[in-house]
Amino acid sequence: MNGKSSNKMWGGRFASGPDAIMEDINASIDFDRKLYAEDIRGSLAHADMLATTGIISSDDRDKIVQGLNTIMSEIESGGFEFSRRLEDIHMNIEARLSDLIGPAAGRLHTARSRNDQVALDFRMWVRAEIEKTQTALTNLIGAFLNRAEEHADTVMPGFTHLQTAQPVTFGHHCMAYVEMFGRDRSRVRDALARLDECPLGAAALAGTGFPIDRHNTAGALGFSAPTRNSIDTVSDRDFALEFLSMAAICGTHLSRLAEEIVIWSTPQFGFVRLSDAFSTGSSIMPQKKNPDAAELVRAKTGRISGALIALLTVMKGLPLAYSKDMQEDKEQVFDAAETLELAIAAMTGMISDLKVLNDGMKAAAGSGYSTATDLADWLVREAGLPFREAHHVTGRAVALAEERGCDLADLPLEDLRDLNPSVNEGVYSVLTVEASVASRTSFGGTAPDNVREQIAWWRAQL
Amino acid sequence: MNGKSSNKMWGGRFASGPDAIMEDINASIDFDRKLYAEDIRGSLAHADMLATTGIISSDDRDKIVQGLNTIMSEIESGGFEFSRRLEDIHMNIEARLSDLIGPAAGRLHTARSRNDQVALDFRMWVRAEIEKTQTALTNLIGAFLNRAEEHADTVMPGFTHLQTAQPVTFGHHCMAYVEMFGRDRSRVRDALARLDECPLGAAALAGTGFPIDRHNTAGALGFSAPTRNSIDTVSDRDFALEFLSMAAICGTHLSRLAEEIVIWSTPQFGFVRLSDAFSTGSSIMPQKKNPDAAELVRAKTGRISGALIALLTVMKGLPLAYSKDMQEDKEQVFDAAETLELAIAAMTGMISDLKVLNDGMKAAAGSGYSTATDLADWLVREAGLPFREAHHVTGRAVALAEERGCDLADLPLEDLRDLNPSVNEGVYSVLTVEASVASRTSFGGTAPDNVREQIAWWRAQL
Amino acid sequence: MNGKSSNKMWGGRFASGPDAIMEDINASIDFDRKLYAEDIRGSLAHADMLATTGIISSDDRDKIVQGLNTIMSEIESGGFEFSRRLEDIHMNIEARLSDLIGPAAGRLHTARSRNDQVALDFRMWVRAEIEKTQTALTNLIGAFLNRAEEHADTVMPGFTHLQTAQPVTFGHHCMAYVEMFGRDRSRVRDALARLDECPLGAAALAGTGFPIDRHNTAGALGFSAPTRNSIDTVSDRDFALEFLSMAAICGTHLSRLAEEIVIWSTPQFGFVRLSDAFSTGSSIMPQKKNPDAAELVRAKTGRISGALIALLTVMKGLPLAYSKDMQEDKEQVFDAAETLELAIAAMTGMISDLKVLNDGMKAAAGSGYSTATDLADWLVREAGLPFREAHHVTGRAVALAEERGCDLADLPLEDLRDLNPSVNEGVYSVLTVEASVASRTSFGGTAPDNVREQIAWWRAQL
Amino acid sequence: MNGKSSNKMWGGRFASGPDAIMEDINASIDFDRKLYAEDIRGSLAHADMLATTGIISSDDRDKIVQGLNTIMSEIESGGFEFSRRLEDIHMNIEARLSDLIGPAAGRLHTARSRNDQVALDFRMWVRAEIEKTQTALTNLIGAFLNRAEEHADTVMPGFTHLQTAQPVTFGHHCMAYVEMFGRDRSRVRDALARLDECPLGAAALAGTGFPIDRHNTAGALGFSAPTRNSIDTVSDRDFALEFLSMAAICGTHLSRLAEEIVIWSTPQFGFVRLSDAFSTGSSIMPQKKNPDAAELVRAKTGRISGALIALLTVMKGLPLAYSKDMQEDKEQVFDAAETLELAIAAMTGMISDLKVLNDGMKAAAGSGYSTATDLADWLVREAGLPFREAHHVTGRAVALAEERGCDLADLPLEDLRDLNPSVNEGVYSVLTVEASVASRTSFGGTAPDNVREQIAWWRAQL
Repeated sequence: MNGKSSNKMWGGRFASGPDAIMEDINASIDFDRKLYAEDIRGSLAHADMLATTGIISSDDRDKIVQGLNTIMSEIESGGFEFSRRLEDIHMNIEARLSDLIGPAAGRLHTARSRNDQVALDFRMWVRAEIEKTQTALTNLIGAFLNRAEEHADTVMPGFTHLQTAQPVTFGHHCMAYVEMFGRDRSRVRDALARLDECPLGAAALAGTGFPIDRHNTAGALGFSAPTRNSIDTVSDRDFALEFLSMAAICGTHLSRLAEEIVIWSTPQFGFVRLSDAFSTGSSIMPQKKNPDAAELVRAKTGRISGALIALLTVMKGLPLAYSKDMQEDKEQVFDAAETLELAIAAMTGMISDLKVLNDGMKAAAGSGYSTATDLADWLVREAGLPFREAHHVTGRAVALAEERGCDLADLPLEDLRDLNPSVNEGVYSVLTVEASVASRTSFGGTAPDNVREQIAWWRAQL
Repeated sequence: MNGKSSNKMWGGRFASGPDAIMEDINASIDFDRKLYAEDIRGSLAHADMLATTGIISSDDRDKIVQGLNTIMSEIESGGFEFSRRLEDIHMNIEARLSDLIGPAAGRLHTARSRNDQVALDFRMWVRAEIEKTQTALTNLIGAFLNRAEEHADTVMPGFTHLQTAQPVTFGHHCMAYVEMFGRDRSRVRDALARLDECPLGAAALAGTGFPIDRHNTAGALGFSAPTRNSIDTVSDRDFALEFLSMAAICGTHLSRLAEEIVIWSTPQFGFVRLSDAFSTGSSIMPQKKNPDAAELVRAKTGRISGALIALLTVMKGLPLAYSKDMQEDKEQVFDAAETLELAIAAMTGMISDLKVLNDGMKAAAGSGYSTATDLADWLVREAGLPFREAHHVTGRAVALAEERGCDLADLPLEDLRDLNPSVNEGVYSVLTVEASVASRTSFGGTAPDNVREQIAWWRAQL
Repeated sequence: MNGKSSNKMWGGRFASGPDAIMEDINASIDFDRKLYAEDIRGSLAHADMLATTGIISSDDRDKIVQGLNTIMSEIESGGFEFSRRLEDIHMNIEARLSDLIGPAAGRLHTARSRNDQVALDFRMWVRAEIEKTQTALTNLIGAFLNRAEEHADTVMPGFTHLQTAQPVTFGHHCMAYVEMFGRDRSRVRDALARLDECPLGAAALAGTGFPIDRHNTAGALGFSAPTRNSIDTVSDRDFALEFLSMAAICGTHLSRLAEEIVIWSTPQFGFVRLSDAFSTGSSIMPQKKNPDAAELVRAKTGRISGALIALLTVMKGLPLAYSKDMQEDKEQVFDAAETLELAIAAMTGMISDLKVLNDGMKAAAGSGYSTATDLADWLVREAGLPFREAHHVTGRAVALAEERGCDLADLPLEDLRDLNPSVNEGVYSVLTVEASVASRTSFGGTAPDNVREQIAWWRAQL
Repeated sequence: MNGKSSNKMWGGRFASGPDAIMEDINASIDFDRKLYAEDIRGSLAHADMLATTGIISSDDRDKIVQGLNTIMSEIESGGFEFSRRLEDIHMNIEARLSDLIGPAAGRLHTARSRNDQVALDFRMWVRAEIEKTQTALTNLIGAFLNRAEEHADTVMPGFTHLQTAQPVTFGHHCMAYVEMFGRDRSRVRDALARLDECPLGAAALAGTGFPIDRHNTAGALGFSAPTRNSIDTVSDRDFALEFLSMAAICGTHLSRLAEEIVIWSTPQFGFVRLSDAFSTGSSIMPQKKNPDAAELVRAKTGRISGALIALLTVMKGLPLAYSKDMQEDKEQVFDAAETLELAIAAMTGMISDLKVLNDGMKAAAGSGYSTATDLADWLVREAGLPFREAHHVTGRAVALAEERGCDLADLPLEDLRDLNPSVNEGVYSVLTVEASVASRTSFGGTAPDNVREQIAWWRAQL
């Protein structure tokens, strides 16, 4: 195909024909340059091992080390020129090394292939990202523990179906998120343990006949052991899929929290007020604080789920070992990792800065006969009614209160006795929201002392 | 929260605390600057209408037009300085306009809000992208029509379950893809017709009291009419979801084609040979041609499906009208559009350059008793057997041929007569692959003349 | 593998070894029996065409017709015995036909294969489902038009970021949903037009040598034309993917509406009250009405998006023509179709029965200085200020009102004049919520007369 | 809304109006009846604890136990009548218990709610399913270990990009799958550890004031401990999301294996032959074995990914604690679990029964100059060339062989010496496929003894 016909065929950005398209679809340097430090670190370990095992000379090793260190500096100072013609980060660095040190550069690739090299680089990048996620989750949990401690006694409505159900404390509600993000952190740890195997030395896909020492390079690069099967090593992207899965579940948790912040900061709810830092105002409606950051965190869960589905789809039905399809792994993970990091940081900030409007919460907690269950429980406990019958009596009490336009606690004793003769003065002690939350002392229940115990337990886990 | 504690809290890129996080999560200028031309075009139309309806003076309109044209030049020449502090493309341009022309800039925002502005900009961008997709699909269909014409008579195996079933022609196989991409093109046209309504003038969400002329701006911007409901206008992203849906279906078609190219170019199949432009070699295995471009196209379908799920998830459960979550719409669509454009261009190139190995195809077509159905059909047609009985006789003929290690056409007449006495010499005329494909003259069947008719029909549609 | 070892190997439900597993994974009769009517209808048309073209005798045709009618009765009366050993609906019916009419049954399969048969059956099923969706959407739109008409003047807050922005009418808000579901209906129509091609006659994948008349069967089965390429015909599932895409977008709309109903029916918002029919109560909290149906509709969007991703994943990378993978198409579409039908019906019911609490809506609309934009617009219009300056003045007015704890309309004229001397008595006419909505007369704006015009326009489309 | 108008409005299945729709969308008994055993087991533990702590009498406990046991028998014998009017499995059982034992039934619900009850039931169901998955994976790994042992020396081509790269052994290839399914098993174990907390006692969402002993019920139901936060307990579905994530990753592995089986069993590849049990034949092409089971396994990954996205979407943005949306969790998990179980069983069967065609594999392994890397490595090792230079020499050798139409091992020594003078007779020892695989002795490499070591290591893990 000559330039002219291709010109006509593609037009626009592909005017220069097949070569331009191929470079565009094939080159990964625009994104995989992010792996430069991992790539160099892996090459340094490989060169050192090759010298230790006598596969290359110490002299060549020294030249390689010096050359790679130079390249590292060049990249970090912005002086390195990346070339799309050289396709990827590995070839960009290899070509520059050859410029710098000559033939010795060619020895670095003994017993190695781009297939195990990229598996190593990407795995190290994901490992670092998981470690950052772990720290970020710890910070977010810490922020919640602080707010839970302040608000262990702050009464708010507990919702089911977004309708008031029973009073709980805001501290207890915060601790629900501590559990969620705690599970996320535990998943992250498991993933870290599972990816702790070094791909380097699997070579193209079959291993190598050179007497390399894979345990040496594994150790030098911070892995417990080398991977056990060379074909699997170059065809596996489980560590990326597992990271995306964890991120998607964590993203779901963040979206629930974000939704609550959006709803709670409406004037209708009025439970919290976002700090200026995490909301945007309006030039003409000074009372308006749009919860932009919370909305964006809520939306980001879509982005992460999308990345997960993208990589699951890419990996579907790929024959072993390496296929070029797998080059699509990186951008999804890079984007999801950055998104997750940002969303957790934004939430940590929002939770830390959030102004809790205790009065609004308490007023809402007391409305809607939210202590009706407490009355029913009292009837079971003190008057010996079966639960279903106690429910029935309570229903009639609520109906009466509603008819009178008053709260349950405002019904005179005689009226309650009409409903069931065994009711006595003691019942009033369970009908306030404070009494209600204080009474929920079952393990995991909302009673303030329970909440404080849980806070202490969690602090010990961090 | 002071700088010190935030330092400890976030570390890393968020060292400077809440403000940095908020800017990072909130600012869209890094990606929405792609909309600069649409934004300016929309503002020019708006300014003109405001002057025509007397809402602003001609003099102000002239200043605004001049200022916007200056900004367009600045951006296109690379001389415009984008600021993250100004959040998005709209505020970046508005601020610069104010620098350039002073108070008149403030009049441009009469009867407009960022909510309808971004809805307009993004819709115009998607409209242009759909038009590009339409052209790209037309080119891809054209490439297939050319190959189909060359190969209307080239026999290849038709597969079911990737096992040889019946002979077809390569031209007919190409035309199957013409049908698929033809449907994609038809979906694209429908989407274009559906998004042909102009959002400008919906203002924040309620419309405006200024006597604007929305039909005027709609016409000036190439739309048939203004949208009919202001709340829907600022909360709707259907046009983006519909584009992503179409792209995902088209991506699926591309992935099927890519899979076939990967399989067909193995030495085991040997049906096609990719051009150098669309494959990568190996420095030590010169016979090797890795179908990298095809593999990447196959993988890209994951990316597009991911983008679709991302935006479906973002839009799930959003109350009306505008929520900040919707800012997550653009990057998904930008990425999917670029991906689709690239994948179609790569496929157009691959198909145009592909070397078809007729001999390999024909040899494969003739193996595996692929004309057994033709024998059965002959028995029905010429000997009057019910189809199921004809199948039975054919099965015994194939077993016999297999036993002898020969093809059906090599069985002597007496042996066939032993199976069914009505068989005669005429049967041999249907047992070659050429006869088989020539006989499939039913509408839509693989007979070469049928294929040529379909090519002619499709050429008339382009 | 003998029974014993397999017993040990699989245990549980697979105790009987490979055969049981294969039947379990392979048989589709448990779900594709749903296609019985389509299958029989297709066979009737095929038999008739075979007789018309002389491929089979009239006598055979009559037997086949009679047999198929018998089978239809047997299935509809529950007297038909489906067998998993016979795998699918086609073989179940074929085997029964053979029992009923003997050898003539074998002639029905002349010039046909299960590949085009299932493509036909499923396409007809999807066509009917799309038609049902169209009707259901029309009913839902009708329900909204009725409520919009009743409430063309009912003022409610228009939200952005779920914060009050400007007053709108409930009728106008309803009409936003009419636009959304109207687009869904238009997508449905396009899909219907696109699938209007009959697969029958593509045979296994290559067409046939029998002189069939595909235009005849296409017409008899209600299609405009036969499909144009036999390979594409048996490998295409675009009509299913397109249905799922449309359903996913429609599901997103339904989820937004559901979210609004959940939020609006909280005591904190108090905008609407669900009818008993579409909410569940609590035995002890009689005031509680849980919006279960709305929550379920909100959730169902996940189910539909899941079905879409499932089929996109199935189709990814499938070589032509038919692969068994495609058997996974049906359950996803069956489930999504039933889900969508149910969700639309539930929403139609909820909207029709919803009690709108006008007072709560109006009170909320008036809070939060929601008419501040009206003040700014007045300053532009009547006092000639540039919009950005008008905004500034308004901001100061709101700050003043906030300081005094009053509404904008309660500020004395002299105070407003202090902010800008050109303010006069006329300004008060724009500061009420009624005046605000009445003023938004731009095309598509919220002014009650606009809304009524839109209702009339839409009624004419139904 | 009266029956008449609703008739007109909904038609079809919703002819009876709102009530029918609500029952259809709301009732879960059609699918959650699957949880009957878990529900009863949970109630037995709860009743026992209530008696132990003195909350109910031993007498009531005994009646409850007896009643529940009766119900268990009734359900298992098929004699229990499920009612949609009673919505779900909990109410169905509760109502029946009340019939059987009267008022004592009412005491069972003391200190419990449907919210913690369903969380318990579903968690126990998922726990059992994960345990089944663990066993199924162990069986699949076992099947691979057996085949790997048989074929530790069987040479086949190792592919990259589906092009022959280097020889490997089929045993080594099998072991790659052992690694994948081994990781799946390890994920499953982690998930099991993480869900090992008992929800019972969280009550509606706030815990309870009754002096229940949650550690008692946790222990009785096989959990290590009770959950720590009552709100999280009723709003959490992480265990379901984590199961679906693991299943999706495992599904991806299965799809890759399935793809290989489909490709390998084509006549063109001819590497394996499926047993009759796991393929379907054709009545007229007896040589045809369609790999239906493999294709279905390949497709099922879509179904599982779809279920994952469905539940991620459902959970997105749900405020705490319980929302009815969460009722959509079960069907997705039920379907994915059944799908995964079936797909693993089918693959275990296919792998166990697969006929490996050693000759076809070996012939393919030797084609395409697959030992070129071995020549290059020899030049590095024996002749001291830098790797990149050795590659260059090898490239020329391959070009020469290609020109002559012979293999590398057929090139005369003098020709090789012309390329590089240090080549000697020793080089021929590395040019056979057997020598190639034997030489790859690096840890994880394909050398047969390595493979045997890995088999032994893995057997010790089972």
